[in-house]
Amino acid sequence: MAVVSEKTKFTPPDNLGTKYRVEEVERFVVAAMASLGVPPHNARALAQVLVAADVRGHYSHGLHRLGSNHYGIAGWYTMKAAERGLVGMSFTNTSPIVVPSRSKKPCLGTNPLSVAAPARGDDSFVLDMATSVVALGKVEVAQLYNKAMPEGWGLDKQGRTTTDPAACLDHGFLLPLGATELHSSYKGFGLGMMVEILCGIMSGAPYGQNLNTRNRSSVPADLSQCFVAIDPSFFASGFQDRMSDFMDQCRNMEPVDKSRPVQVPGDPERANAQKVKSDQGITYHINQVRESWQLAQFLGISPLEWL
Amino acid sequence: MAVVSEKTKFTPPDNLGTKYRVEEVERFVVAAMASLGVPPHNARALAQVLVAADVRGHYSHGLHRLGSNHYGIAGWYTMKAAERGLVGMSFTNTSPIVVPSRSKKPCLGTNPLSVAAPARGDDSFVLDMATSVVALGKVEVAQLYNKAMPEGWGLDKQGRTTTDPAACLDHGFLLPLGATELHSSYKGFGLGMMVEILCGIMSGAPYGQNLNTRNRSSVPADLSQCFVAIDPSFFASGFQDRMSDFMDQCRNMEPVDKSRPVQVPGDPERANAQKVKSDQGITYHINQVRESWQLAQFLGISPLEWL
Repeated sequence: MAVVSEKTKFTPPDNLGTKYRVEEVERFVVAAMASLGVPPHNARALAQVLVAADVRGHYSHGLHRLGSNHYGIAGWYTMKAAERGLVGMSFTNTSPIVVPSRSKKPCLGTNPLSVAAPARGDDSFVLDMATSVVALGKVEVAQLYNKAMPEGWGLDKQGRTTTDPAACLDHGFLLPLGATELHSSYKGFGLGMMVEILCGIMSGAPYGQNLNTRNRSSVPADLSQCFVAIDPSFFASGFQDRMSDFMDQCRNMEPVDKSRPVQVPGDPERANAQKVKSDQGITYHINQVRESWQLAQFLGISPLEWL
Repeated sequence: MAVVSEKTKFTPPDNLGTKYRVEEVERFVVAAMASLGVPPHNARALAQVLVAADVRGHYSHGLHRLGSNHYGIAGWYTMKAAERGLVGMSFTNTSPIVVPSRSKKPCLGTNPLSVAAPARGDDSFVLDMATSVVALGKVEVAQLYNKAMPEGWGLDKQGRTTTDPAACLDHGFLLPLGATELHSSYKGFGLGMMVEILCGIMSGAPYGQNLNTRNRSSVPADLSQCFVAIDPSFFASGFQDRMSDFMDQCRNMEPVDKSRPVQVPGDPERANAQKVKSDQGITYHINQVRESWQLAQFLGISPLEWL
C-alpha cells in the first residue's frame, strides 16, 4: 500500500498502448523484482505465474499483483500436476476479509482452491476459485475499470451491502460463496474453513484471525498452502478418455442462449490463452497500463514496451 | 416412485403422535428393510445412518429416505474418521438434476461432499453439503411441509425459476451453489464436477448423464463414492487444539443479530442432537409420520410407536 501511494506521484503519458508481448511482460516483472533485490530464479518464477494469469484472462491475479505477496492463480500449481497426467489440488489461506454468515466482521480469507484433471490431448479440467462469491481481485479490477459490482459480492466497512467497489475495498468485506444464508452461504464459509484446516491448521502456521491483514504490507503474510497430487491410473485405466467424454457431455448441453454455450472450468481461460496467441500479445486495460508505467518510474526500470 | 403411489392407498388415522424414541425409529427401519428381504446387518447399518440424519436435524436425509437407494448424510462417513482423530472426506455422485450455468437441462447430480475434522473433547468440524444451492431433500421437505421455497433454489421443468417445491420436483431442476452466473454459480457447478471426477470418473463407473435418473427406481442407481482419511499428526502436533481455537474464533465473532450467533459447520447438527437427547426422542412433522404409517401398512409391519 505504501508503494501504491508513492508511485501515484508519477503521471503517465497520454499515448500508452494496451497490447504487450508475453515476453515483454515477463521482462518487466523480472526487472521490477530485480530492482528490489529479488534473486533472478525467484523473479522468473513469479513472472511466469503472474503472466500466466493474464494469458488466461484472470487480470486480477496477473500484472495487477506485481509487488504484493500473492500466491498467484491457484490453478498454476494444479495445471503442473495435470500436465503430468495427475489430478492436482491446491489450497491457500489468505488474510481475513470474508464475513461468515451472521457475523459483522471477517474471520476468514477468500481461501481459494484449485482442482485440475487431465483429459485427452491438450484438454483439461481446471477449477480455480475463491471460496468467497468473488475473489478480492475482481473487486479491485472493478474499481480499476470504474465499474459497479453486483449486489451480493461484498459489504462496506459498516457491514452494509454495497455495489461500490471503492466502498468495499475501504476496509469492507466479501461474502462467502452462496452470498445469503437462504442461498447457503454457510457452504462457502464451510469450504473456506476447509481450506484453512488444510493450510494453516494442518501445518501449524498462523490461521484465521492470526493472519496479517492485507493492509499491513510491511510484515510478511506468513500464509500456508496445501498441495495434493493423485495418480488416477492407480484406480482404473482410461481416466483421460472419461474426462473428455464427461466434459463434452457438459459442453454439449443445449444452452439457454445459443450465443453463450455451456463451459466447463478451464474453458474460458483456454479461450483467452488462444486469443493471446493469435493476437501475439496480451491486451490490458489502460488503467493497468498506467499503473505499470507509474511502477516503472518509481522503481527506475524501463516501462513496458507495447506492440 | 411405484412404492409411493401404492402406499398412498392407505389413509392414516388422525391421532398419530410426532415424537419417537431413537431406538423405535431404528426398529422401524430394520423391520421395513427386513420385510423386503434385506439382510439384518445391512438393515441395521441403514437404520443407523438414516436415524443419525434425523437426530442431527437433517430430516431430508433420514426416515424420509427409507426405501430409496440413498447414501444418507455424507457426514456419517467423515465423522467416523474424526472420531478416530483423522480428517475425513467423503464424496458421492448422484442422479443428474443440477443445471450448469447457461444450460437448459441438468447434467450433474447434487453431488455432496463432507469434510470432518476432530477438535478438543467432543467438539468437531463437520461440513456436509450438496454442491447445489440446496439438496433435493430440502425441496422434498418443503413440499412435505407445504412451504414455498426461496427464489434461486430451483427451476420448473421448463427451466423457469420457481418457488413452488411441487413444480421443482415435477421433472424440474436444482441450481448449483452460487445460484446465478453473476454470483459465481460456475463455482458450485465446478465443485459438483470435482465430486464426479473423484467418484464416477476416477473409479471407472457411470458418471454425469450416464447415471440413472431418480425417477427410475426399478434399476440400480450404480452410484460411486470416494473416501479420504488424513492423519494430521503426520504434519504437525497439536491439530485438535488449533481446530478448537479456530472454531471458537469463528463462533465468537460479533453477530449482526445477537439472538443468532455465528455457527461453524456441525454446530446446528450438534445442537439438534442435544435436543433429541434431552427430549428423549425425535420430533417429526406430522406429514412424515403419516408417510411412515402408510409405508408400514404397505409393507405389513408394525407402525412407529410414539412417545
